Amino acid sequence: MVIKGHLSDGETEYTVTAEDNLAVWLVGIKTLRIQPYSLPPLGPYDVKIRIKAVGICGSDIHHFKNIRVANFVVKKPMVLGHECAGIVEQVGSQVKFLKIGDCVALESRISCRQCQLCKDGRYNLCREMKFFGSPPTNGALANQVVHPADLCFKLSDNVSLEEGAMCEPLSVGVHACHRANVGPETKLIIVGAGTIGLVTMLAACAFGSPKIVIVDIDDCRLSFAKDLGADEIIKVSFRTQVLLFFLPISSNFVSYPVDLSFDCVGFNKTMSMALQATRAGGKVCLVRLGQSEMTLPLTSAAAREVDVIGIFRYRNTWPLCIEFLRTGKIDVKPLITHRYKFTQEGMEEAFETSSHGGNAIKVMFNL
Amino acid sequence: MVIKGHLSDGETEYTVTAEDNLAVWLVGIKTLRIQPYSLPPLGPYDVKIRIKAVGICGSDIHHFKNIRVANFVVKKPMVLGHECAGIVEQVGSQVKFLKIGDCVALESRISCRQCQLCKDGRYNLCREMKFFGSPPTNGALANQVVHPADLCFKLSDNVSLEEGAMCEPLSVGVHACHRANVGPETKLIIVGAGTIGLVTMLAACAFGSPKIVIVDIDDCRLSFAKDLGADEIIKVSFRTQVLLFFLPISSNFVSYPVDLSFDCVGFNKTMSMALQATRAGGKVCLVRLGQSEMTLPLTSAAAREVDVIGIFRYRNTWPLCIEFLRTGKIDVKPLITHRYKFTQEGMEEAFETSSHGGNAIKVMFNL
Amino acid sequence: MVIKGHLSDGETEYTVTAEDNLAVWLVGIKTLRIQPYSLPPLGPYDVKIRIKAVGICGSDIHHFKNIRVANFVVKKPMVLGHECAGIVEQVGSQVKFLKIGDCVALESRISCRQCQLCKDGRYNLCREMKFFGSPPTNGALANQVVHPADLCFKLSDNVSLEEGAMCEPLSVGVHACHRANVGPETKLIIVGAGTIGLVTMLAACAFGSPKIVIVDIDDCRLSFAKDLGADEIIKVSFRTQVLLFFLPISSNFVSYPVDLSFDCVGFNKTMSMALQATRAGGKVCLVRLGQSEMTLPLTSAAAREVDVIGIFRYRNTWPLCIEFLRTGKIDVKPLITHRYKFTQEGMEEAFETSSHGGNAIKVMFNL
Amino acid sequence: MVIKGHLSDGETEYTVTAEDNLAVWLVGIKTLRIQPYSLPPLGPYDVKIRIKAVGICGSDIHHFKNIRVANFVVKKPMVLGHECAGIVEQVGSQVKFLKIGDCVALESRISCRQCQLCKDGRYNLCREMKFFGSPPTNGALANQVVHPADLCFKLSDNVSLEEGAMCEPLSVGVHACHRANVGPETKLIIVGAGTIGLVTMLAACAFGSPKIVIVDIDDCRLSFAKDLGADEIIKVSFRTQVLLFFLPISSNFVSYPVDLSFDCVGFNKTMSMALQATRAGGKVCLVRLGQSEMTLPLTSAAAREVDVIGIFRYRNTWPLCIEFLRTGKIDVKPLITHRYKFTQEGMEEAFETSSHGGNAIKVMFNL
Repeated sequence: MVIKGHLSDGETEYTVTAEDNLAVWLVGIKTLRIQPYSLPPLGPYDVKIRIKAVGICGSDIHHFKNIRVANFVVKKPMVLGHECAGIVEQVGSQVKFLKIGDCVALESRISCRQCQLCKDGRYNLCREMKFFGSPPTNGALANQVVHPADLCFKLSDNVSLEEGAMCEPLSVGVHACHRANVGPETKLIIVGAGTIGLVTMLAACAFGSPKIVIVDIDDCRLSFAKDLGADEIIKVSFRTQVLLFFLPISSNFVSYPVDLSFDCVGFNKTMSMALQATRAGGKVCLVRLGQSEMTLPLTSAAAREVDVIGIFRYRNTWPLCIEFLRTGKIDVKPLITHRYKFTQEGMEEAFETSSHGGNAIKVMFNL
Repeated sequence: MVIKGHLSDGETEYTVTAEDNLAVWLVGIKTLRIQPYSLPPLGPYDVKIRIKAVGICGSDIHHFKNIRVANFVVKKPMVLGHECAGIVEQVGSQVKFLKIGDCVALESRISCRQCQLCKDGRYNLCREMKFFGSPPTNGALANQVVHPADLCFKLSDNVSLEEGAMCEPLSVGVHACHRANVGPETKLIIVGAGTIGLVTMLAACAFGSPKIVIVDIDDCRLSFAKDLGADEIIKVSFRTQVLLFFLPISSNFVSYPVDLSFDCVGFNKTMSMALQATRAGGKVCLVRLGQSEMTLPLTSAAAREVDVIGIFRYRNTWPLCIEFLRTGKIDVKPLITHRYKFTQEGMEEAFETSSHGGNAIKVMFNL
Repeated sequence: MVIKGHLSDGETEYTVTAEDNLAVWLVGIKTLRIQPYSLPPLGPYDVKIRIKAVGICGSDIHHFKNIRVANFVVKKPMVLGHECAGIVEQVGSQVKFLKIGDCVALESRISCRQCQLCKDGRYNLCREMKFFGSPPTNGALANQVVHPADLCFKLSDNVSLEEGAMCEPLSVGVHACHRANVGPETKLIIVGAGTIGLVTMLAACAFGSPKIVIVDIDDCRLSFAKDLGADEIIKVSFRTQVLLFFLPISSNFVSYPVDLSFDCVGFNKTMSMALQATRAGGKVCLVRLGQSEMTLPLTSAAAREVDVIGIFRYRNTWPLCIEFLRTGKIDVKPLITHRYKFTQEGMEEAFETSSHGGNAIKVMFNL
Repeated sequence: MVIKGHLSDGETEYTVTAEDNLAVWLVGIKTLRIQPYSLPPLGPYDVKIRIKAVGICGSDIHHFKNIRVANFVVKKPMVLGHECAGIVEQVGSQVKFLKIGDCVALESRISCRQCQLCKDGRYNLCREMKFFGSPPTNGALANQVVHPADLCFKLSDNVSLEEGAMCEPLSVGVHACHRANVGPETKLIIVGAGTIGLVTMLAACAFGSPKIVIVDIDDCRLSFAKDLGADEIIKVSFRTQVLLFFLPISSNFVSYPVDLSFDCVGFNKTMSMALQATRAGGKVCLVRLGQSEMTLPLTSAAAREVDVIGIFRYRNTWPLCIEFLRTGKIDVKPLITHRYKFTQEGMEEAFETSSHGGNAIKVMFNL
């Protein structure tokens, strides 16, 4: 079968072959096609998964709109999608802990397992990472994928496949809480009540934070955050934020010392607010990356020994996410606001909805 | 005795009383006087020290020139000086570990010992800190001071009082290495070969760093750093630094992955260089605070999980400094470039030399 | 007033003076008297507290029965009690954060604040610690005590004084969880369902442990633990424990890998069980000290890099305890099984009840 | 080719095939044969190494004498040896960082890279570990082996292949220092001056320990340790050790507080000494495992919050070992006391020398 693409290196024809496996291929700017996807052979440590739920992520939309994210450019047709869960359909000869019929969530990438960062346990920083739906690696918005068994995590009976797919976005929040060492003594603020702010809030709550204030400019998002469990919400405007710059450090804008601030937006103003709000000896964690260059009151924060912690995706988070879902410490279902079928029409509507924001938080495909 | 001052709240007269203790008082912009200094009574846990060596620090010069540092304003005459060592002359009734005649280096400040930061062992962040020679606390450029015995650390026989006074600036480097967890695997760069860069380099070497590259714009300072033990020196200019911004992250400007970068200057360009030079999973430590607001490529660093660590002075560093001096792992003597006597003339020359920079690294009073 | 004692250095008469402050004095083996207790003068950083609730601890009973605990011998009459809370009645001139009428829980001891361990934040290991009701320091089973204000922690409105007194035993569990770094990924077993096992369980649950199995030989205690929140209870007998010794390491006696085991008994068999149950890379925390010398399968545990962590009381735990009580994450009220008045009769009954165990968990005085 | 063995499951014949690769096969108790060893095929990430230096380890001798170590039983003929270095002779198609002719030290084992411990960076605890010369995995006392390229570490020019082979025993010391966090403030004692005690001492010194006291019962070993860099040596006898048990904790048998004790023997008396010698808040690290069950004064150590840390081999240590050798911070050459050729005669003499102890520290094969 031949797929025509009009991607970064000019219009070309690409050949793909497959039997019964269809996938959503990005073939050009804002151009998707459901077409066959030929899987690699099943290795001894691999499983074949029938995908049942895939969420759309901000980076999928970026790829959809721009056929690139930062330096990662889509040069030939690529299957999208990386927030996924499904059912084991075939197991490799050496697979021990999974069997046909198991429902699993997929950690949607493969590290090299050989570099020093992998061997140190910081494999999310591996330079040879193959990440689903990030060029040139095909994603998971398909009927089937082949994946290493150790990266497929069995769901407990009371966790649905849709919730399984939510382990990926939730992992961002869990990793942020891990890196920032959130615990029962960590009073914190979260700047930004978008999807990343919300999953960070859910995770922080599950890690035992006794006090979470969430800050945003949008009433709607704040109200949603409040319903989802925020202890306090604060609406800020441009003016408020500017004022903050001139307040002395000692005048907390919340009524307690902030041990940790999460910036889930990633702009000058949000990061400045995070830095200024944090008590001496506290931490600021930059979860979402917005502006590439930032102008910040870093010096006064450093002089209070406020450390700044960066986050790149996540590592070793799936088991804990599944545990949080199993015990009910986290409920991700309210985040799933839209559902679509895996058809041409469903696909178009799903990407349309995701692209235009509005009240959509998480758009989910049911396959 | 009456001291006339022309300080921030207008010219006024202040009364001090004393018998035989003279001190260097800051009484106005660039105006110092040697005059009597009346000590507080000796408490049961205190010792009285006859001061024998006092170094001049950058902050002393700041006070001398501006009668303020940041928000700390000198409002009435104040004794300067905080890098000091001397001989125990009197001991309080409850003092166990010191006796008359002991040579000691002074940790030149007193924390409240009661706030949560003090009780957590992070007492350098205590808000009630009384710091020698920082308003309104008098300093140590005097014949005698009274100080808590537990903040006076006995020097071993092979460590001089001048070296003892150097424990204070050395503590900045030692605390930076502590906070950044320097060890035998930590390959690092230091941006800035001024006094703070040099003490950080000496400390990092003593903490076992196998590779230290130091970067500066000045040949003279670099050459001095090389003699003092840098493995490699790199001269940079404005142009080089700009170029760095456009190099892809992967092109290291040194031939190995940098685990840690110390910014010992504290400006946009130096901090940007530190952030960009550091490998994924590494750290940047901001040791010297220059610009209050910085414009930085923080996002790309955060995406490599490069953490930014701030430093405020030091804590619990004197015993280790003295140990480094005792064993010869650190030799601070080459840093002492100028010596003056405790006279009107010596005082004037000392502050003159310190103020004008030149080849002076550390200016020391011998009392 | 004269108190006759028959303590370790022979029968003697001791003189005490006081106005209206009565206290429970230990004057001999199993001999208590309610007599006046003269307080030290109120220092500038002190508060005077009217004590309203005092719990009886195992160590109080030890002192009562043996006039000693380990090397600590009661040589002259001593006021007992260290689990206490009360109302501020007078404040020193420099006290900032408390006022008359505040309800507070007391961290019932004073460290030297000057030794290296204090300055490092590990003040619970201070050798100069003055601990309420541990010779020669008088305790808090009295109408009033004088105590440093920074060691009196304000209770929130929804936390009673009795609950405030429970912060002391609860602190043992909280410190154990701190030291062992309990979090949402820490599946654990607790060996021993006595008071220490129970407070450790409550704390572990509040720290977010997703799975707590508690092990004991007594059905009654296990049933109580189950009601209080244990996920699973396991009854063991001598025979079971012996069998455990011969099971290969791989055969977990619970159905999941144990990340952490708390030994809240402190004997050969309990500690051996803890060591053997723990997964490679996990931890064992010895919370209660029973036998002074133990025979243990330490080698096989060490070969799995299972670390053994010791606990001595607690440090910096009161604020977190109060926060747990305030938010309802911990409910200590079910632990308070008996209440007595501060009279001769109440005192006798309270110590009688505590001494004979039975179904008493925590015996509380209401003053 | 047929090899006759008389191993644990009775005398049997085993068939091996090879061309020109000879190896030392353990075929029965104290029975070794040099015979062909057929290598597995070279995978894309593998290299083939011509082995040039192999040291004999205590565990090789155990296997030689007992055809077992603990539960690991040699059931069919097995190639011995795991302390090795050699020259790259062939590289797999995907190997990036090695080329033919490179001299390398081999981390002599392969973990599964898939279990949670591997992914957490604690791969030394992997249950699927294939360790050279531990049944059923063949070792490296052979002309050639095939090994993953990422486990072969390039030696710098000034480090010999013999020194490269020493990275394996040195790794034990380096991992112990890592786990115990040895740094410039860590004053320590090492109990036992055997090979493990010596490599631990060398590593601790390179990690910056300012004070190392080594304790043994043998003058010869102590004298060797002193020459190798111990700051102090202490000879103990049975009587001394018994006395130690009855000394109060406060009477240090060395003149400074011991932050860390390494037990490099692993018996009741040595571990008890280590526990008792260590200051409050310090650590004891059990490096060598002797007795499987130990009777210890653990309680008093735990009450001082002295933690006990276990060690199982090492992880991620080769790069640091090579760095220590390159910079001269560690010199392992004095440890190599005997050298043998890879012949029938050499082999017999080498194992004879190693088995009988005497003044042999490290016996090395030159191939």
